[in-house]
Amino acid sequence: MQIRVGFQMVYEFAARTPVVLMLNVHPSRATDMIEPDQLRITPALPVKRYLDAFGNLCSRLVAPAGELTISTDALVADSGLPDPVEPTARTHEIAELPHDALVFLLGSRYCETDRLMDTAWSRFGATPPGWPRVQAICDFVHSHVSFGYHHARATRTAADVVVERRGVCRDFAHLAITLCRCMNIPARYCTGYLGDIGVAPEPEPMDFSAWFEVYLGGRWYAFDARHNVPRIGRIVMARGRDAADVAFSTTFGANVLKRFAVHTDEAAPSRIEVVERLVA
Amino acid sequence: MQIRVGFQMVYEFAARTPVVLMLNVHPSRATDMIEPDQLRITPALPVKRYLDAFGNLCSRLVAPAGELTISTDALVADSGLPDPVEPTARTHEIAELPHDALVFLLGSRYCETDRLMDTAWSRFGATPPGWPRVQAICDFVHSHVSFGYHHARATRTAADVVVERRGVCRDFAHLAITLCRCMNIPARYCTGYLGDIGVAPEPEPMDFSAWFEVYLGGRWYAFDARHNVPRIGRIVMARGRDAADVAFSTTFGANVLKRFAVHTDEAAPSRIEVVERLVA
Amino acid sequence: MQIRVGFQMVYEFAARTPVVLMLNVHPSRATDMIEPDQLRITPALPVKRYLDAFGNLCSRLVAPAGELTISTDALVADSGLPDPVEPTARTHEIAELPHDALVFLLGSRYCETDRLMDTAWSRFGATPPGWPRVQAICDFVHSHVSFGYHHARATRTAADVVVERRGVCRDFAHLAITLCRCMNIPARYCTGYLGDIGVAPEPEPMDFSAWFEVYLGGRWYAFDARHNVPRIGRIVMARGRDAADVAFSTTFGANVLKRFAVHTDEAAPSRIEVVERLVA
Amino acid sequence: MQIRVGFQMVYEFAARTPVVLMLNVHPSRATDMIEPDQLRITPALPVKRYLDAFGNLCSRLVAPAGELTISTDALVADSGLPDPVEPTARTHEIAELPHDALVFLLGSRYCETDRLMDTAWSRFGATPPGWPRVQAICDFVHSHVSFGYHHARATRTAADVVVERRGVCRDFAHLAITLCRCMNIPARYCTGYLGDIGVAPEPEPMDFSAWFEVYLGGRWYAFDARHNVPRIGRIVMARGRDAADVAFSTTFGANVLKRFAVHTDEAAPSRIEVVERLVA
Repeated sequence: MQIRVGFQMVYEFAARTPVVLMLNVHPSRATDMIEPDQLRITPALPVKRYLDAFGNLCSRLVAPAGELTISTDALVADSGLPDPVEPTARTHEIAELPHDALVFLLGSRYCETDRLMDTAWSRFGATPPGWPRVQAICDFVHSHVSFGYHHARATRTAADVVVERRGVCRDFAHLAITLCRCMNIPARYCTGYLGDIGVAPEPEPMDFSAWFEVYLGGRWYAFDARHNVPRIGRIVMARGRDAADVAFSTTFGANVLKRFAVHTDEAAPSRIEVVERLVA
Repeated sequence: MQIRVGFQMVYEFAARTPVVLMLNVHPSRATDMIEPDQLRITPALPVKRYLDAFGNLCSRLVAPAGELTISTDALVADSGLPDPVEPTARTHEIAELPHDALVFLLGSRYCETDRLMDTAWSRFGATPPGWPRVQAICDFVHSHVSFGYHHARATRTAADVVVERRGVCRDFAHLAITLCRCMNIPARYCTGYLGDIGVAPEPEPMDFSAWFEVYLGGRWYAFDARHNVPRIGRIVMARGRDAADVAFSTTFGANVLKRFAVHTDEAAPSRIEVVERLVA
Repeated sequence: MQIRVGFQMVYEFAARTPVVLMLNVHPSRATDMIEPDQLRITPALPVKRYLDAFGNLCSRLVAPAGELTISTDALVADSGLPDPVEPTARTHEIAELPHDALVFLLGSRYCETDRLMDTAWSRFGATPPGWPRVQAICDFVHSHVSFGYHHARATRTAADVVVERRGVCRDFAHLAITLCRCMNIPARYCTGYLGDIGVAPEPEPMDFSAWFEVYLGGRWYAFDARHNVPRIGRIVMARGRDAADVAFSTTFGANVLKRFAVHTDEAAPSRIEVVERLVA
Repeated sequence: MQIRVGFQMVYEFAARTPVVLMLNVHPSRATDMIEPDQLRITPALPVKRYLDAFGNLCSRLVAPAGELTISTDALVADSGLPDPVEPTARTHEIAELPHDALVFLLGSRYCETDRLMDTAWSRFGATPPGWPRVQAICDFVHSHVSFGYHHARATRTAADVVVERRGVCRDFAHLAITLCRCMNIPARYCTGYLGDIGVAPEPEPMDFSAWFEVYLGGRWYAFDARHNVPRIGRIVMARGRDAADVAFSTTFGANVLKRFAVHTDEAAPSRIEVVERLVA
């Protein structure tokens, strides 16, 4: 399957403003980029790119006062398969975990593992370890929290979600991540494109989505406590300990986001694209 | 049944310090006082007494620098029956509630009804109204929270209890009260004597206890989410919106509570008491 | 001076809904009511009135499904003088305070005295006691917090205000009240009409206002940490421990407030009023 | 100057328990290690070592049930100079910052930059940028917070410190770090040895210490809001976004820390050591 993804954002800056963007598809999908997702920035500006400690591709620029438009459009090869489900994937002993998975057991800005330890163990201590335990956590979060865009609040933490039971996709992810970490299962936050391929179209306007990954049975698996069904076509842009690490843009000055549109759609493979592949 | 209750407290004050005490049995039990619970204060001091807006008997004094001993010992007539259980006691429509019950629907220091509204309705909205709903709330709180004296923290609120799942009897009461109020059931905080009459002795040192009352079927009923079984011999000292209203002592200056002992025991009816009953 | 005050509210209720209103001028201003502020309710409904424990006049009704309009218009005699300023008004010793002022030293839903004790004493412990200390608290709060209607959040507490430094008039009041209570100065929350008599008109739409009162020198004085200048024409509607006690309406069911307008203006004394004064 | 550092810890584990330790001197001090700080672990156990994403040297092991003793003793060469003070060190424009400093501008578990942004800008927006601004932040934190070991609480965040004004060295660091980040100055948390060389001995028992570093004028400088004077002999063990990243031990199972002693003292250079240097 091929998936066409992209977005357009229009900012209005009051003054010259440094900006860091995490708006590219994650380098782990590099080999799937049929048409790469080059950032188109108007006015044209010098951009510096780097990989952060999580391997995310970041772009730095200094926006002039006035309007800044950032957009991209890319074509991505995808398995077309739903998120893998491996009920036998097992929890690792701590001692077996790769070194670089350990940081995903620690607390972070929106994931207060220290405060939710008792909640996690009393609720999930008796569930079968491994995949079923993570699924039990997702089932709990999915039923515990009500989704609503008007419930968005930038400072809401996992502990707040437990109390308020409302949120958007990032809140579902934060709570599930926190509970997994408390149960000694490494969990990391993901953000990226997720269209409605294979499911009923969602009534909400398209936005980037947030989900999470856990380390089970020797690899990372995607879970999504918000939708809580395997989905087709997740295209990850950035990973981190939680949403604090992967803001799609960090702007160091006053601005207004005047337009924000995201698209993610299955693309019919075109004849032209096939030709290009032949000549390549 | 007769119950002998009392306490002894020894404070050390650094300087002359105003004190407000709520250490008498509540005036609603006045007719049960076989031997009244006069406060014995050493050194002797002038004491002013008043009833606060909740009908609690308060004592005001100014402690001199040095040691202050407060004690009492009383004999109280009690039905000897466990807390009443009335599964048919019904929830009142808001419009039927007595005026003075309405304040016990509002938020208070340790009971954030505004934050727990969704939690309450999603968890208890489908339970049968009336007594079974309050019992469902107690069952939930009883199983959600772990008791431990070392878990005491003076600033813990009901929302914190939801997250941390630990606490002492006041925390159990605060969470249950908050959930009842969210469900439009007036709930008020109680503190007083509660011995281990009819149950296995508790391994913890005797302390005052906290429970709560709800307004169902035209009257207030005692519930106790911490023990969650009907108990014999609750002798209420003070009622309020939550623990902020009924501190057994409020001291306006530095001090150390050097000794604190409470006793609550079934008393063998004395001959004198029998005689009094005969002549009555 | 005469002040014309009133409001109009239009609710849309999804179903039959009990409502408690605190929308009358406070009984303490009863003798100032030239034209009383009768609540006009459409459709016509039975209304029960009562005084709560703080002396506020409350109205209870059951709104039918559909639209409910509540309005009033009244003419109130006022001294026309700005809030009194009495720099020599002294702090009372705790032992001297009236019994019914003591509750206004305790913590409440939005006023965490237990958490802000150190903040209060380290900041105001060295200020001159009495009026100057309360003024120092108002000066601090006034400069610490930025006003903005878009900063309103129903669950914000005094501790949140300390951290976030944003809010609306109720947030200014909550923080100032909390600090006063920590310093052993009784402080209570007030809500009511406050026009812009004698000051430049405010660019914001008229709303009810919130301020607070402290007990100094044997009486209650109005303070207003939001405006922090004496103002003319406060007409109190309700008092309580904090905003939790004095919501202008408490609705027990889903609804939308479709219209909300408040007016407060100086009225030219009518000829009739002059005659009345002559004959008096 | 030479500094002798080390510690001894004795744990009692209930069962076989995985442990991650950050108890070595940071690799950035490797060339200063006259006698290296090898971890001595009893009983002898296999230990795996790795560097985490912050460059900290971590040790992984699985403790058997029973007692585990970990100790070290090392001799470290040190400049003997107090922390450098460079009042002309300037703040960098965001655009100039090294890529790997950007993560130290983000929020983290105990550093809620999102909640403290207004506090930071209103308090420090008018201070001279660069070194004086960081010093102003330290001065503020130093005077805002009272130190006390009995004030330690593992879940306290920077926002809690603002409200409660109490804490231990990690709390001072968290608040100062958060304020620096809000002002766009990269700030990272440090933990390590800090003796009382050159200052009056502290009455408290020796412990590891926490301070922070900021990126100014092209390098990282140490600041210490707790002591707020330049100190001699900081020997960093671990750096991270906050205390969540650098726990000296993370234990995945029940245990008791039965003994914990740290030593940090100036060592007189021995003759033997001199000889060794000559022959090297």
